[in-house]
Amino acid sequence: MTEPAPQRIDFFFDFISPFGFFASLRVDELAARYGYGVDWSSMLVGVSILKVMGLKPVPQTPLKGDYAKRDALRYCRRHGLTLGRAFGQPPANPLIPGRCFHWVKAHHPGREKDVARALYAAYWLEGRDIGDLGLALDITAGQGIDRAALADGVESGEAAELLRKAVDASLARGVFGSPFFLVGDEPFFGVEKMELLEEWLREGGW
Amino acid sequence: MTEPAPQRIDFFFDFISPFGFFASLRVDELAARYGYGVDWSSMLVGVSILKVMGLKPVPQTPLKGDYAKRDALRYCRRHGLTLGRAFGQPPANPLIPGRCFHWVKAHHPGREKDVARALYAAYWLEGRDIGDLGLALDITAGQGIDRAALADGVESGEAAELLRKAVDASLARGVFGSPFFLVGDEPFFGVEKMELLEEWLREGGW
Repeated sequence: MTEPAPQRIDFFFDFISPFGFFASLRVDELAARYGYGVDWSSMLVGVSILKVMGLKPVPQTPLKGDYAKRDALRYCRRHGLTLGRAFGQPPANPLIPGRCFHWVKAHHPGREKDVARALYAAYWLEGRDIGDLGLALDITAGQGIDRAALADGVESGEAAELLRKAVDASLARGVFGSPFFLVGDEPFFGVEKMELLEEWLREGGW
Repeated sequence: MTEPAPQRIDFFFDFISPFGFFASLRVDELAARYGYGVDWSSMLVGVSILKVMGLKPVPQTPLKGDYAKRDALRYCRRHGLTLGRAFGQPPANPLIPGRCFHWVKAHHPGREKDVARALYAAYWLEGRDIGDLGLALDITAGQGIDRAALADGVESGEAAELLRKAVDASLARGVFGSPFFLVGDEPFFGVEKMELLEEWLREGGW
């Protein structure tokens, strides 16, 4: 008798997405209540929204941009979060944290969530520029990762290739926004779908 | 002493929006639980999404189109709804039901919700073409509205003008999708925000 494979949620997020950040604070606890694990994978909304879907960035979309900002601030008030970044600031370069994350995930599997949490906190709570390579390396090293080895992985292009493959894999599975959740191939988009995701886990789908 | 004005949700929907239809089945009951009334107003996602926001129709948006279809069918299974229309069929002309609705709302206030419900049911449950003027007039007349007077209102352009003004008013309030809810000026977009809307009513905002 082999043990059944642990049930898993695949969680996709972009570091520059506030709603991805919000989801990152809740998804593991939600999953654990139903005996699920969570696999985290950063993606790039700049690729899915701009290149694949042919849309424009949400903050620059009339009406929706204002709504998204208001929705995010309402969420923060509800959940007792105080952001360290103002909306409307230009976003950080998301490639840098994405590359650090996927390099860690490949070389130190199991450490990537703490790295993501640290990068997310630096960006959204402390307002720091995680698109700055030196800072991203420092934050990642602060989670017990060898800074020089990571720097080599970024410098050599290996980390970029890992991120590129992860983004392609996410698109192939239909992931187009942040946060996005897959339970098997069942998709849930947006932090406001986390209650439905929870129902899905509780009931085993329908 | 005057009585306080009744508290009100403004509910915006497009007849060709499945999620607008889903919301129409729940919004009055939800509101009533908290002593709120609901004002219904049809809008046009073709104007907000295509012209104002500069996006493309959801069904033609890569990845998101497939997701929206899947999400709608999942909602239907969850809520015991069987649609009479296949996704992927070309939509009806939404101007026709929108004009009938707003003419009724202007001339027979209080009757417009039953008219909207009848049009929605014909379209989404029975798969009928409510963009056909004759059918839309028949359905509206079936709700006790004078068919000839309505036909005159459509023929004369009055109904078109009422719809146009309503759409402009919705855009001026930031309404960009269907369903959309406003409590005062607090916006809630999407059927998946109805639980948050309910929390908002229950707690009086935050």
